Amino acid sequence: PEPKPAAVLEKSGWSFKPRGRLMFDAGTVNAPDSVDADTGFGNEVRRARLGASGDLPGGFGYKFELDFAGNEVEAADAILTYEDGDFEVTVGHHNNFQSLEELTSSLHTSFIERAAFTDAFGFERRIGLSASYEAGIVLAQAGVFTDNFDDTGTDNRGVDGRLVVMPKLGNTQLHLGGSLHYNELGEEDATVRYRQRPLVHFTSTRFVNTGNLGADSEFGAGLEAAAIAGPFHAVAEGYWQNVDMPLSENPTFFGGYAEVGYFLTGGDTRGYKGGKFDRTKPANPVGEGGFGSLQFNLRYDHLDLNDAGILGGVQNGYQASLVWKPTDYTLFSVNYGRMDYKDAVIPTADGDTDYGVDAFGVRAQVDF
Amino acid sequence: PEPKPAAVLEKSGWSFKPRGRLMFDAGTVNAPDSVDADTGFGNEVRRARLGASGDLPGGFGYKFELDFAGNEVEAADAILTYEDGDFEVTVGHHNNFQSLEELTSSLHTSFIERAAFTDAFGFERRIGLSASYEAGIVLAQAGVFTDNFDDTGTDNRGVDGRLVVMPKLGNTQLHLGGSLHYNELGEEDATVRYRQRPLVHFTSTRFVNTGNLGADSEFGAGLEAAAIAGPFHAVAEGYWQNVDMPLSENPTFFGGYAEVGYFLTGGDTRGYKGGKFDRTKPANPVGEGGFGSLQFNLRYDHLDLNDAGILGGVQNGYQASLVWKPTDYTLFSVNYGRMDYKDAVIPTADGDTDYGVDAFGVRAQVDF
Amino acid sequence: PEPKPAAVLEKSGWSFKPRGRLMFDAGTVNAPDSVDADTGFGNEVRRARLGASGDLPGGFGYKFELDFAGNEVEAADAILTYEDGDFEVTVGHHNNFQSLEELTSSLHTSFIERAAFTDAFGFERRIGLSASYEAGIVLAQAGVFTDNFDDTGTDNRGVDGRLVVMPKLGNTQLHLGGSLHYNELGEEDATVRYRQRPLVHFTSTRFVNTGNLGADSEFGAGLEAAAIAGPFHAVAEGYWQNVDMPLSENPTFFGGYAEVGYFLTGGDTRGYKGGKFDRTKPANPVGEGGFGSLQFNLRYDHLDLNDAGILGGVQNGYQASLVWKPTDYTLFSVNYGRMDYKDAVIPTADGDTDYGVDAFGVRAQVDF
Repeated sequence: PEPKPAAVLEKSGWSFKPRGRLMFDAGTVNAPDSVDADTGFGNEVRRARLGASGDLPGGFGYKFELDFAGNEVEAADAILTYEDGDFEVTVGHHNNFQSLEELTSSLHTSFIERAAFTDAFGFERRIGLSASYEAGIVLAQAGVFTDNFDDTGTDNRGVDGRLVVMPKLGNTQLHLGGSLHYNELGEEDATVRYRQRPLVHFTSTRFVNTGNLGADSEFGAGLEAAAIAGPFHAVAEGYWQNVDMPLSENPTFFGGYAEVGYFLTGGDTRGYKGGKFDRTKPANPVGEGGFGSLQFNLRYDHLDLNDAGILGGVQNGYQASLVWKPTDYTLFSVNYGRMDYKDAVIPTADGDTDYGVDAFGVRAQVDF
Repeated sequence: PEPKPAAVLEKSGWSFKPRGRLMFDAGTVNAPDSVDADTGFGNEVRRARLGASGDLPGGFGYKFELDFAGNEVEAADAILTYEDGDFEVTVGHHNNFQSLEELTSSLHTSFIERAAFTDAFGFERRIGLSASYEAGIVLAQAGVFTDNFDDTGTDNRGVDGRLVVMPKLGNTQLHLGGSLHYNELGEEDATVRYRQRPLVHFTSTRFVNTGNLGADSEFGAGLEAAAIAGPFHAVAEGYWQNVDMPLSENPTFFGGYAEVGYFLTGGDTRGYKGGKFDRTKPANPVGEGGFGSLQFNLRYDHLDLNDAGILGGVQNGYQASLVWKPTDYTLFSVNYGRMDYKDAVIPTADGDTDYGVDAFGVRAQVDF
Repeated sequence: PEPKPAAVLEKSGWSFKPRGRLMFDAGTVNAPDSVDADTGFGNEVRRARLGASGDLPGGFGYKFELDFAGNEVEAADAILTYEDGDFEVTVGHHNNFQSLEELTSSLHTSFIERAAFTDAFGFERRIGLSASYEAGIVLAQAGVFTDNFDDTGTDNRGVDGRLVVMPKLGNTQLHLGGSLHYNELGEEDATVRYRQRPLVHFTSTRFVNTGNLGADSEFGAGLEAAAIAGPFHAVAEGYWQNVDMPLSENPTFFGGYAEVGYFLTGGDTRGYKGGKFDRTKPANPVGEGGFGSLQFNLRYDHLDLNDAGILGGVQNGYQASLVWKPTDYTLFSVNYGRMDYKDAVIPTADGDTDYGVDAFGVRAQVDF
C-alpha cells in the first residue's frame, strides 16, 4: 500500500487529516515604460492555508480549510459530505463545477496561476447544496448555490451542473467535460466586473478589465478536454460568459487555453482522479536517491473581454513553466509569460492600447 | 467502552483533540409589509470553528477554539485549566456562568438559536480566572472577569457565580440552578444596548432594542430548572438584568423561556453532563442500520425590554423545532417561530408597533 | 527516551505536531500623575497561536503558526525547510537572525517581554530565503529577506547574517555571537519609527519614541554573550541601529541589556539549543510530587534613542521577574520594572521629561 502521511489518524469510520499549504511567489512584471502600472519586482505569500478533513461514521465527512494569505482570512472548502455508493451529497462552501482548471487544486496546477478566464469570470466557492454521481467513466455534478462564505448578504442565487466522461484508452487517460452555470445577482443595482492580472498574482495591475457592468444575471458554459499519456499531457478548455444587462445589449465574453506538458524525468506522469488533475508523485523522489520530477509546460491563454460595445480588452498569452517536485509534497516552479494585449485598459503615454507585457514568476510550495 | 474519534491522541498525561464545527443556516423572516426590515430569504455560515483541546501532564489542560464565520475571527474558549480532584481552576477566555442555555454548547441546543435573553443581555466569553467545584450532585462555579478577547481595552470588571444541584431521581435527571452576575463598565460614558433578532441569526433586524443606555454597571440574576426523563425533557429559565444608570432610574429587564422536547425515535435521550446539556448520541445511528434520532421541541420565549421609562419592546415567541441527528456528529434541524411583539422599535407605516413576525430557519451542522 | 507529547505523530520520514500557545497578561503601569498616558490596570491576550510543524520525506520540513491575539491575525513562522547534514535551507516567513533575545521563543524568555531594543528597532519576521550551517560549536546563518507576511507591498530588501560559537566548558554552556543586518526601504518617502513600551505590552503608551524618520535604509549590528551553569545563567547583548536618512545626518541608536537568573528549585537549568535559549523542563514537576521550577531573574535594560539631533529618549530599566513553571508546558510569571526615562517624549505638566515609570505584570501561559 502507498505510504500515508503520519498525520492521517484512522479508526473504524473515523479519520482526521490536518491540511495545510504554503506558497511563496516572487518575480517581475514588465510593461511598456509609459504605462502606469504596478510593475517591476514583486513578491507575496500566495496561499497560506490551515485546516482539516476527515471521515465520520455513517458515511459522513467534513473538510474545513482557511486561507490566511494577504492579510485577510478567507474560507476555502468548508463542507459536510455524505456518501452512499456512487452518490455524494455536499453541503457548505465549495466550488461550483466551473472548469477542469478551476476544480484542480492549486497544489496541482501546471502553471503558477490558472488560465486567465477562471479569475476573470469570478469563479469562487459559494455556499450551496450539491450532489455528484460517479460511476465508471461518468461523473455528473449539480448544485444550487448562494453567496461566498465571506459575504452572505450579496443575494447570489445560482444553479450549476457539470458532466464529465473520463475513459481510459490503453494507457491514455482521456477527459471530456462540459458545464453550465446560471447565477442571479439578487441585489439592487448589482454589477459584475471581469478582469485579470498578467499571469502572476503579486501585481495588482489588470491590463484587461470590463469595469463595473450593471447586471441582473450571468450565464456561463464551459467545455473541457484533456489527455494524459505517460509523461505527456494536453488540455484545452473554452468558457463563454454571458451577462444579462438590464439597460443594454447582453455581451458574451470568452476565455480559453490550450496546454501541453512533458515530464523530463523518467517514469513520471500527471495525476488524475475524480474528474480533475491530481497530485504528481515523483517516481524517484529526493531522499530515495532520485531528483524528483521535472515537468515542462507550454500554454496559450486567451481572454476576450470585448463584446456588445464593451471594450474590456483581449489577451493572447504565450506561457511556459518548469515545475520541479523534489517529493510528493514539495514544489518549485519557474514561469514565464508574454501577454499580448489588444484594447488594454491602461494606455501608454501615446494612447496606445495594443502592447505586450512580460511576466516572470517563481514559486516555492509545501503542503501537509 | 465508547468509541472514540480517531482524532483523540493519548499518551500518559497527554491528549490532543482537534476541534471543529460548521453550521450553515438558511430561512426566511416575514414581518408586516410596511415594516422597514431585513426580511425575506437569508442565509449565512453561522459558526465555522477550528481549534484544539487536550490534557497536559500534572493535571493541566488547554482548549483554544476560533470562530471564522461572518468574515471576522472571534475567539471562543481560550483557556488553561488545572484540575485537582473535585476542583478545577480556569484561566483565560471563557463563559461567565450565565445560564444553562448559554453554557450549553451551540452544538447541543434544541433550537437554531438560544433563548432571546442570552443574546439580548450581551452574554459573551470574557477573560478571567474562575474556580469550579463539582462533587456528587453539586456544582459551584465562581470567577472574576475583565474583557472579551477581541477588545481588552473596554474596562469591564466583573464577578460571577453559579450554583447547580443535579440530583437523579430514579431515571430522571433533574437540574436546579441559580446564578448572580455583577459587571462594572469601567469606561467613561459607557453604555449598554440590549436587543435581539427574531429567532434566526441570518437577519440583521432586531425588533426589540433598548438603544444605547448610559450605564455604570450591570447586575444579573438567573434561575434554571430542567428535567430529562428518557425521551422527554423540559427546561425553564428566568433572568433579570438590572442596569445602574447614572442619570436616570435603574431599569430591570427580564427574559426567560419554557421548553419541552420529545424524541420520536426509540431509545434516545438528551445528553447532560457537568451542569449543562450535552451531546445527543442517537441509539440507532445512520450507518448502523438506524435512522438516527429525531427530536421535536416546543418553546415559549419571552423577553421584556420595557422598564423605567425605557421602551425596548416585548417579545412573546412561540417556537417549534425538529432536530434530526443521523449520527453523533451531524445534525439537521427545521425551526419555526412566531414572535409577537409589543412596542417593537420598528413601526409599521401606520405607526403600529404591536405585530407579529414569522421566522423559519434550517440548519446543517457537522462537528469533529 | 524523553516523554513525547501525544500530539506528535510519526511515521518514517513524516511527522505532524500541532502547535499552540496562550498567554494572558495583566498588571499596572504607573507614571507621574500629570503625564498623559495609558496607565493604571491593563490586561490583554498577549499571544494566542495555533499552527503545526513537522517533517516530510526527503529531508523537507514545514512550520506554520498564526497568532490570533489582539483582534487581528498575524503570521508567525511560515516556512518550508530542507535539511542536508549540517546545512539547512529555509524559505518563507521567519526571523532575520537579529539577536539571541529575539530568536529565543517567547515561550522561553525570562521576562514577560523581551529587552527594549528588540521591539524598538522593529525586529520582525520577514519573507526570505536563508541558509544555516551548524557543526560542533559553530552556527552560521545568513539570508535575504523582503517584507512581512501581512504586507508584501512595502518593498523591504534586506540581507542578514549571524555567527555564533557555543562551546561547553565543563558543565558551563557558553554562547558568543554577532550579527549584521542591512535593509533597504524601497518605498518612496519611506520612514522608520523606533519606540518601545515600558516593559509590559498591555499599555499602548511609549515613553521613548523617535517619531517617523525619513529613511533610505537601516544598518544594524549586534553582539551576544551568554552562559548557563546549572541553576545560573547570565546574558548580555548590545545592538547598534544606524539609519541612512536622505535629508539629515545619520543617527546610530543603541540598545542592550545585561541579565542574570537563578533557579531557586534544585536540579533546574535553563534550556539551550541551536544558538538560542530553549524550554526549561522542571526537574520535579507538579504531578510527579514536585513543585516545578522557580527562577528569579534580574535585568538592566537600556535603550538610547537620542542621536544626531533626534531626541527619542533614553530608557534605563531595572527589572526583576519570578518565573514559575509547574510543568514543561505551563508557566506563570510575576514581573516588575522601574524604567528611568531621560528626554521622554511625553512631558509632565511642568514640562519635565526626565522621570520614572513603574510597570508590574503577571502572565499565565500554556503551550501545546
